[in-house]
Amino acid sequence: MTFDLSRRLVAEFLGTLLLVCTVVGSGIMADQLSDDVAVSLLGNTIPTGAILFVLITILGPISGAHFNPAVSFAFFLRREMQLPEMAAFMTAQIAGGVVGSIVAHLMFALDPVQISQTVRTGPDQWFAEVVATFGLVGVILGGLRFRPEAIPTLVGLYITAAYWFTASTSFANPAVAIARSLTDTFSGIRPADLPGFITAEFLGAALAVALFGWLLRAEERKA
Amino acid sequence: MTFDLSRRLVAEFLGTLLLVCTVVGSGIMADQLSDDVAVSLLGNTIPTGAILFVLITILGPISGAHFNPAVSFAFFLRREMQLPEMAAFMTAQIAGGVVGSIVAHLMFALDPVQISQTVRTGPDQWFAEVVATFGLVGVILGGLRFRPEAIPTLVGLYITAAYWFTASTSFANPAVAIARSLTDTFSGIRPADLPGFITAEFLGAALAVALFGWLLRAEERKA
Amino acid sequence: MTFDLSRRLVAEFLGTLLLVCTVVGSGIMADQLSDDVAVSLLGNTIPTGAILFVLITILGPISGAHFNPAVSFAFFLRREMQLPEMAAFMTAQIAGGVVGSIVAHLMFALDPVQISQTVRTGPDQWFAEVVATFGLVGVILGGLRFRPEAIPTLVGLYITAAYWFTASTSFANPAVAIARSLTDTFSGIRPADLPGFITAEFLGAALAVALFGWLLRAEERKA
Amino acid sequence: MTFDLSRRLVAEFLGTLLLVCTVVGSGIMADQLSDDVAVSLLGNTIPTGAILFVLITILGPISGAHFNPAVSFAFFLRREMQLPEMAAFMTAQIAGGVVGSIVAHLMFALDPVQISQTVRTGPDQWFAEVVATFGLVGVILGGLRFRPEAIPTLVGLYITAAYWFTASTSFANPAVAIARSLTDTFSGIRPADLPGFITAEFLGAALAVALFGWLLRAEERKA
Repeated sequence: MTFDLSRRLVAEFLGTLLLVCTVVGSGIMADQLSDDVAVSLLGNTIPTGAILFVLITILGPISGAHFNPAVSFAFFLRREMQLPEMAAFMTAQIAGGVVGSIVAHLMFALDPVQISQTVRTGPDQWFAEVVATFGLVGVILGGLRFRPEAIPTLVGLYITAAYWFTASTSFANPAVAIARSLTDTFSGIRPADLPGFITAEFLGAALAVALFGWLLRAEERKA
Repeated sequence: MTFDLSRRLVAEFLGTLLLVCTVVGSGIMADQLSDDVAVSLLGNTIPTGAILFVLITILGPISGAHFNPAVSFAFFLRREMQLPEMAAFMTAQIAGGVVGSIVAHLMFALDPVQISQTVRTGPDQWFAEVVATFGLVGVILGGLRFRPEAIPTLVGLYITAAYWFTASTSFANPAVAIARSLTDTFSGIRPADLPGFITAEFLGAALAVALFGWLLRAEERKA
Repeated sequence: MTFDLSRRLVAEFLGTLLLVCTVVGSGIMADQLSDDVAVSLLGNTIPTGAILFVLITILGPISGAHFNPAVSFAFFLRREMQLPEMAAFMTAQIAGGVVGSIVAHLMFALDPVQISQTVRTGPDQWFAEVVATFGLVGVILGGLRFRPEAIPTLVGLYITAAYWFTASTSFANPAVAIARSLTDTFSGIRPADLPGFITAEFLGAALAVALFGWLLRAEERKA
Repeated sequence: MTFDLSRRLVAEFLGTLLLVCTVVGSGIMADQLSDDVAVSLLGNTIPTGAILFVLITILGPISGAHFNPAVSFAFFLRREMQLPEMAAFMTAQIAGGVVGSIVAHLMFALDPVQISQTVRTGPDQWFAEVVATFGLVGVILGGLRFRPEAIPTLVGLYITAAYWFTASTSFANPAVAIARSLTDTFSGIRPADLPGFITAEFLGAALAVALFGWLLRAEERKA
């Protein structure tokens, strides 16, 4: 079963669109309804984990369901993806994310395009993004190695955890980070803080490719 | 394994009944117990997602577990369902939904039949319902294409997410919308606002049939 | 693979013990930590659903993992269980439940044996218990019919939903009800209110055996 | 498929590191964001259960994914692990836990090494840890016996429940307990209280090996 490039790019576009729509939309909803920020974060986390399972299950067989330039970059580093395809995937992901942010705003009757003013910067935040993306890419590589059919669950639950255990709430995704710079709501990030986040994310992905590449290599032994 | 039409209609009736009973009942419970609306919405979301997994798993093999006129309409558009059967399914779904609302009220010692006064209208709400139902039908079509045994999980988790990322809390179901117009509690909708919601839901379903019909068509290639 | 009667009774005893321990213990914990009753109910619901999946998975292959006299009664009505075995199961379940309540109290440094003073009575509560147990037994019969390996998930998620959509928070289990009459904490029920609950539970189980017995019978058709 | 000892130890180190990172990090996040301790505990529980599923799935095929000296001890008691290997595993687990605590602190811009001042002691807490670890090891042994592929789900959901039904929030893991003595945040434990917890945990593991060893032994009968 193979899908042509146009369908694969539409899958990446649509998947990232719905992912960002969920991250931004549930953030708006949760923030409007509660004064307890931890309750709002639960209302942001649970939908995000749920939609990741859904989107990876239904779009994974078409495009691989990266929805994330750092993930496409990891496959490029492993020589499982060519440079032009990676570039096309990243473009589709970023475009999908931007449209996802606009769709979320339209549903909530907000200005469609906004510029975030939420400060997210500093070495601790960058370190958190390295850890978050290292974990995400490691989880994907480990899942592909041992239990590919569990990847939708693995990614959904990993992000559910990473929202809470990283100080940055785990963006772990440059396309989502860019989209989140275009919303001045709960999940936003100031455009000026993007370079730090995105650099940390690609770095985390590269580290995971190195460490998990070694760790997952089984020795074949004669019985 | 085949089930006769009477059993299939009872499955649609009973499934929609228990679905609405959960939506309305958990809304009443959550609203009574909390002053934080986001906590109430969590108490509404988690039971709804859970019961969807359960109902689709045990009734799906009998009737397909639509519980939703927009879903039956999507299968009709795809010529996988005949007009008379669609009409019978929709009737059973609406009847089940209405009874489900009554059952919920009786359990909570409230007036069995009520008229909602909750305003849910406007272009943003309608747009949200288009998106919500587009996503629901897309998820079902994608699941049927690639991983049919995961449909109960996919629908349960999709609705879990959509409660939060759509401004309308994702009714995405005309039968459930009608039933919710008959409860003046947390999950209600004013009868006057039904036409906008129901139109948007059928429109979303039709859009999903068109886009996912194209997207999911694999190309067969010779190796 | 068969297990002798003593192991099966120990499995029923131990499973009901840990189930009650979770219901009562998480109720105490949640109630002590929060002033928002809906948050406490979430802290009671999530552990209960989780432990049901666990206990049914690891003890189901030994005893069937009823942990519930209403479930054993349903199998007796279906002639899948003999009267003496049903009586032995019910005894083990009730004993396990009582010990579970004591264990929970000891962990929280409370009086080991208590008498609940929480009023839970009236036609609406009884109706809720009929619905709750009808649903539980229906879910088990439907799961056994179509997807036996999903029973742990089905029961865990059904109870997760039923905590919220029934006005009684869905005891749906006479052994658990008896055990809960022995704790004067969040999850308690006054001993005087047991007969109404227990009668409703057996009634709901019998109704489910009747309706689902008919519904689940497939017609064999020649192609 | 076999992995050499160095990879297995790295898997134990990395898994315990990320587990502790999640327990400690999500505790800090949840505690900072909410005034309702039950909400904070939900924000601590859900990520921990989620990451356990993830880590056991991707690292289990390499090392068995113990991440816990009490679990390694249980396999030693069952003669499924040699003494030197057990010692090496425990060392890797403790080292991973300590580093995990430091990593969490660095992400949240806190002092990397801290000494907890949270009192957790007394017979009720010790009894809770016996119950918690008894249950954990029993769940693992039952899962291995009947449904090994469900172990990641079983452990994730068991700990989700045990956070709430045990008065100690279920450490159930000596390596995690040691690591948690090095954080003066939500999830900490005073170093002076470690011996009581750790003794109780090994005792619970031994009890589970004894009881479940008997319970899970099926009788082979001729048909």
